[in-house]
Amino acid sequence: MIIVMRPNATKEDMDYVLQRAEKLGLKPHISKGTERTIIGLIGPEDALRAMPLEAFPGVEKVIPVLAPYKLVSREFKKEDSVIPITSRLKVGGKQIVVFAGPCAIESEKILLEIGEKVRSAGAVAMRGGAFKPRTSPYAFQGLGLEGLKILSAVSKKLDMPTVTEVMDPRDVGLVAQYADVLQIGARNMQNFNLLKEVGQSKKPVLLKRGLSSTIKELLMSAEYIMAEGNHQVILCERGIRTFEDMTRNTFDVSAIPLVKQLSHLPIIADPSHAAGTWNLVGPIAKAAVAAGADGLIIEVHTKPEEAVSDGAQSLLPEKFKTLMQELQKIALAINREI
Amino acid sequence: MIIVMRPNATKEDMDYVLQRAEKLGLKPHISKGTERTIIGLIGPEDALRAMPLEAFPGVEKVIPVLAPYKLVSREFKKEDSVIPITSRLKVGGKQIVVFAGPCAIESEKILLEIGEKVRSAGAVAMRGGAFKPRTSPYAFQGLGLEGLKILSAVSKKLDMPTVTEVMDPRDVGLVAQYADVLQIGARNMQNFNLLKEVGQSKKPVLLKRGLSSTIKELLMSAEYIMAEGNHQVILCERGIRTFEDMTRNTFDVSAIPLVKQLSHLPIIADPSHAAGTWNLVGPIAKAAVAAGADGLIIEVHTKPEEAVSDGAQSLLPEKFKTLMQELQKIALAINREI
Amino acid sequence: MIIVMRPNATKEDMDYVLQRAEKLGLKPHISKGTERTIIGLIGPEDALRAMPLEAFPGVEKVIPVLAPYKLVSREFKKEDSVIPITSRLKVGGKQIVVFAGPCAIESEKILLEIGEKVRSAGAVAMRGGAFKPRTSPYAFQGLGLEGLKILSAVSKKLDMPTVTEVMDPRDVGLVAQYADVLQIGARNMQNFNLLKEVGQSKKPVLLKRGLSSTIKELLMSAEYIMAEGNHQVILCERGIRTFEDMTRNTFDVSAIPLVKQLSHLPIIADPSHAAGTWNLVGPIAKAAVAAGADGLIIEVHTKPEEAVSDGAQSLLPEKFKTLMQELQKIALAINREI
Amino acid sequence: MIIVMRPNATKEDMDYVLQRAEKLGLKPHISKGTERTIIGLIGPEDALRAMPLEAFPGVEKVIPVLAPYKLVSREFKKEDSVIPITSRLKVGGKQIVVFAGPCAIESEKILLEIGEKVRSAGAVAMRGGAFKPRTSPYAFQGLGLEGLKILSAVSKKLDMPTVTEVMDPRDVGLVAQYADVLQIGARNMQNFNLLKEVGQSKKPVLLKRGLSSTIKELLMSAEYIMAEGNHQVILCERGIRTFEDMTRNTFDVSAIPLVKQLSHLPIIADPSHAAGTWNLVGPIAKAAVAAGADGLIIEVHTKPEEAVSDGAQSLLPEKFKTLMQELQKIALAINREI
Repeated sequence: MIIVMRPNATKEDMDYVLQRAEKLGLKPHISKGTERTIIGLIGPEDALRAMPLEAFPGVEKVIPVLAPYKLVSREFKKEDSVIPITSRLKVGGKQIVVFAGPCAIESEKILLEIGEKVRSAGAVAMRGGAFKPRTSPYAFQGLGLEGLKILSAVSKKLDMPTVTEVMDPRDVGLVAQYADVLQIGARNMQNFNLLKEVGQSKKPVLLKRGLSSTIKELLMSAEYIMAEGNHQVILCERGIRTFEDMTRNTFDVSAIPLVKQLSHLPIIADPSHAAGTWNLVGPIAKAAVAAGADGLIIEVHTKPEEAVSDGAQSLLPEKFKTLMQELQKIALAINREI
Repeated sequence: MIIVMRPNATKEDMDYVLQRAEKLGLKPHISKGTERTIIGLIGPEDALRAMPLEAFPGVEKVIPVLAPYKLVSREFKKEDSVIPITSRLKVGGKQIVVFAGPCAIESEKILLEIGEKVRSAGAVAMRGGAFKPRTSPYAFQGLGLEGLKILSAVSKKLDMPTVTEVMDPRDVGLVAQYADVLQIGARNMQNFNLLKEVGQSKKPVLLKRGLSSTIKELLMSAEYIMAEGNHQVILCERGIRTFEDMTRNTFDVSAIPLVKQLSHLPIIADPSHAAGTWNLVGPIAKAAVAAGADGLIIEVHTKPEEAVSDGAQSLLPEKFKTLMQELQKIALAINREI
Repeated sequence: MIIVMRPNATKEDMDYVLQRAEKLGLKPHISKGTERTIIGLIGPEDALRAMPLEAFPGVEKVIPVLAPYKLVSREFKKEDSVIPITSRLKVGGKQIVVFAGPCAIESEKILLEIGEKVRSAGAVAMRGGAFKPRTSPYAFQGLGLEGLKILSAVSKKLDMPTVTEVMDPRDVGLVAQYADVLQIGARNMQNFNLLKEVGQSKKPVLLKRGLSSTIKELLMSAEYIMAEGNHQVILCERGIRTFEDMTRNTFDVSAIPLVKQLSHLPIIADPSHAAGTWNLVGPIAKAAVAAGADGLIIEVHTKPEEAVSDGAQSLLPEKFKTLMQELQKIALAINREI
Repeated sequence: MIIVMRPNATKEDMDYVLQRAEKLGLKPHISKGTERTIIGLIGPEDALRAMPLEAFPGVEKVIPVLAPYKLVSREFKKEDSVIPITSRLKVGGKQIVVFAGPCAIESEKILLEIGEKVRSAGAVAMRGGAFKPRTSPYAFQGLGLEGLKILSAVSKKLDMPTVTEVMDPRDVGLVAQYADVLQIGARNMQNFNLLKEVGQSKKPVLLKRGLSSTIKELLMSAEYIMAEGNHQVILCERGIRTFEDMTRNTFDVSAIPLVKQLSHLPIIADPSHAAGTWNLVGPIAKAAVAAGADGLIIEVHTKPEEAVSDGAQSLLPEKFKTLMQELQKIALAINREI
């Protein structure tokens, strides 16, 4: 931690900082410049972070040096984490894992139909929402428990593992009974009690980046889950909110290599929610794979114009099939497989 | 709802849109231009919103005309809503209501000390957090139930109503026992299950705008609470996330008059969280009052340098007192009181 | 300047940094922690800024300590700068200076009519554009020289000084002949050659903050002008680009007190461009004054529905008059006048 | 253009809108709903855009239907534009064109050295700045004319065409004498007089997207150039300004396919400026190619730690070589070449 003192800071101000720091067992290094005095505090930054250093008299600025996350960091674990979904399917290895399916679960018939199509196109896992976070209280909120049961039934029939969103800490146990991966949606990335709850579950967690969350905050939310004991965290870039209004969100492709540098956790991409419209899903998916994503989660619907949610961004099965073929070529070009 | 068809849309595409619209009892108006055909659908937009019109073949763009919120809107209720906190204290009337207190509840001694100071300076209600949403799992998470008990005890001693945050749908009943106003924090503005839960409570709700939520989304979250039957909603502008990094958040002062135009609900301002540093709290508070805010919620601490949370943005009691005097003059200038 | 070395930095990496720093006459302070080594470089940061320290082997992060601006800073000049526009009118003193007028100059008749109205309502200076930066090449681009002549003629008739935009370094001399204050528009805030050109002029400059410029960048652009010898710079907050789409831009009210802390230069506010719609102009103007703005620049038009540019955000003269009366009360409340 | 009237709009308000519209030769379609009346105006929107419809009494909202750009649009020209740089080199065809070189031109020796390296790695054109837009007036501003001469000399020696930035309308003629492509930098994307000036030049123009410009604004700036008669415009995505602070800018990969849908102009990517740090350049470059970019412009330096500008984001020649090999594989996978 670096503390920059104001030009007019007094000796008392300096002494107060040094005294508080020494109480915490930190070794200060003082650098006196012509304009400013700087105090470098060497030692565990966590203790310092809890102190309101910026409220100390005479302090102008406080600059943290170390990253605030630990368990998620590359320094904590050098090699890539590989998260097992089932005995055969893993996220974070050579295989780029594709989850596909409708936005919301509507009926067993439709889900099965979509599931068969995406499986035959090369998807190895299914997505589908039973609990839907909707901006409007009047919009379709998902089938709930009934949806979970449909998801589980179709999953068995097709022998495909599943991911589905959990929105409420009270539902974690229930969702964990029916799905293979628990999804934390973008709007809940900083729902800390929900993070703690899935942190106590034994299921892998797919943690989506919040619409306006920094990469550092994404990693801190993963830290919440890992701090509770669940180290099976898969991160997901799904676009951030910017001033650009031609896309639903701005897909932050740099987040993929950045997360890989900072953390050992795998990261996948959700091109459907970033794009908001099906005809951008393909290019974003290809970009994500080329940038090093460990997987994709893509919305597919046999009749987008009848979907109860997010139809506009759903691919038709035949377009999804073509996309999968293109993605396979890109995966090969970067020495991975899909 | 306006539907803009692609230049190459076929007659079948048009017919499909018309047929689906008519099934919902909507009356279409067709305008054929040289470049585009436009279909105006007159009638209840809610039914339409549920349809993935953008996924229809031949549709280029869908433009909603009516606002998606109802109960919160000025059209639903013309006169300003006034929310009673206690028999004597109301938010939304001529009086600009000031909530003040520490970020987090630390001990009864400290809270009482701060409470006495802010009351004597003119604050009429107290703030203080028992459940703290923190970016890091290793940071102080609040005293929880013990904090609620302290808040309630100090509230009685000082005869000041209180607001405190509730983060978990499971805690709504508990918090409602101890506090007068339930606060939904910025990170939970779209925690829809939490909104539903406070919507079923009888207590007034202070709903903070999310860091990257639009004003429309803020109103839709208020709609969630009102749709459950609780019409006692107080909105709060607390700064949004932008590229500017010299302030913690960018206080969106325009949100205050805009909300007043669109909605009958009162709106207050939180200058402390927007600023992130105490020496901007005063100017932002004054600006908010001049722009028409119905109240303020301000962090005050007797020893900011020992606060367990957000010390840097807390005002010292004497600075708060001076600010209150300045605010009283501005309130008078705009024909209100504080 | 603080240099944070990577955990795996070698002794050679360290030595290279130290050697380059010493060549520049800088005194390094080394702090060895358990996780990182930190080098504090004390001395003139400017020399360092020119070095690509982040490209040095072994360097993880470079953290500047001092602000990059000099002439604009409070440390360079403690007391507020007061910029004289004419012998009687000054910006930056007790008086809050109001510039008002149409977006674009349309004809002498209209400008005179508007000028008389705003003068009688209390405006002391006129605004009006002869060169208009427009997003579309097909939109009205301003009357150019003819507009300047009209502005100058009306200015003399009404005895009101004027501000008008200059967009092209080739036009600075011309505009300076006709107007009292040279305006640099938001889109040209980082048109560095234009800044240098107005820096060589003798006229006061009104420098508008760019749509997505940080406060630090605004100050650096002012530094460009001052570095050329022209110290008569008036800054202007006019709203920044954010995700919120209900306002044209988000008026960053905190910029006003922040600039006052960092710089001795006066800052005024442009509520019209921030709002984008006339019915928000009043509340934003009041907020700006309450937050400490030294002036306002407001669009007024007698027939907004016939204005050739920005009619939607123009106030009618009678609304402007009422606003001026309200602003006078707020000015009094904060011990200023208007 | 769709005009939404306020619920309380009078018959006079309606009539005024209709009358003004009819004067412009537009055919109105009126749709009366229970809550709002909507007027669809069919005909040339340009005439309407010039009218301040939102300032009309009784008008609530104005919604444009047609895009404001023409010459740049896909509707104006269906097939992809291919821009010839020299007789052999074209941008916009099957070949993905790579421009590489230092940020700033420092000396003939260094430029030649870098040029040889990038050519042998597969770059077909050179970049290098003679005029540098710098945030600080005290930073290196480029070698100017001397830099242009060096660029031209090295270009001849290596037989590689060049791109270099022009910042001032007064320099367009000069720069056009020495360089093959005129670059408009991000900060000048809306420097309209500069756009007009390069629009009158005969040289191809590389137009970079502004830091906070929408895709629509980028296209409108291209329209400025084309409207002057120069149709040789190459667009460039180089990252936008967002709240994320771990990258210098957020590379908006979706802009590439979006521009391809809306316009016939080619678009290339600048991963160096988006990343701000060399170790993200590779992944972003790969993503851009996979998403359909027609070219790349990449900063390479033989001694980044001695570069006078942007060393931190420059690739070493050997890293650039490896990247080119990886890019060739991805280009093949999508049926293009590099």
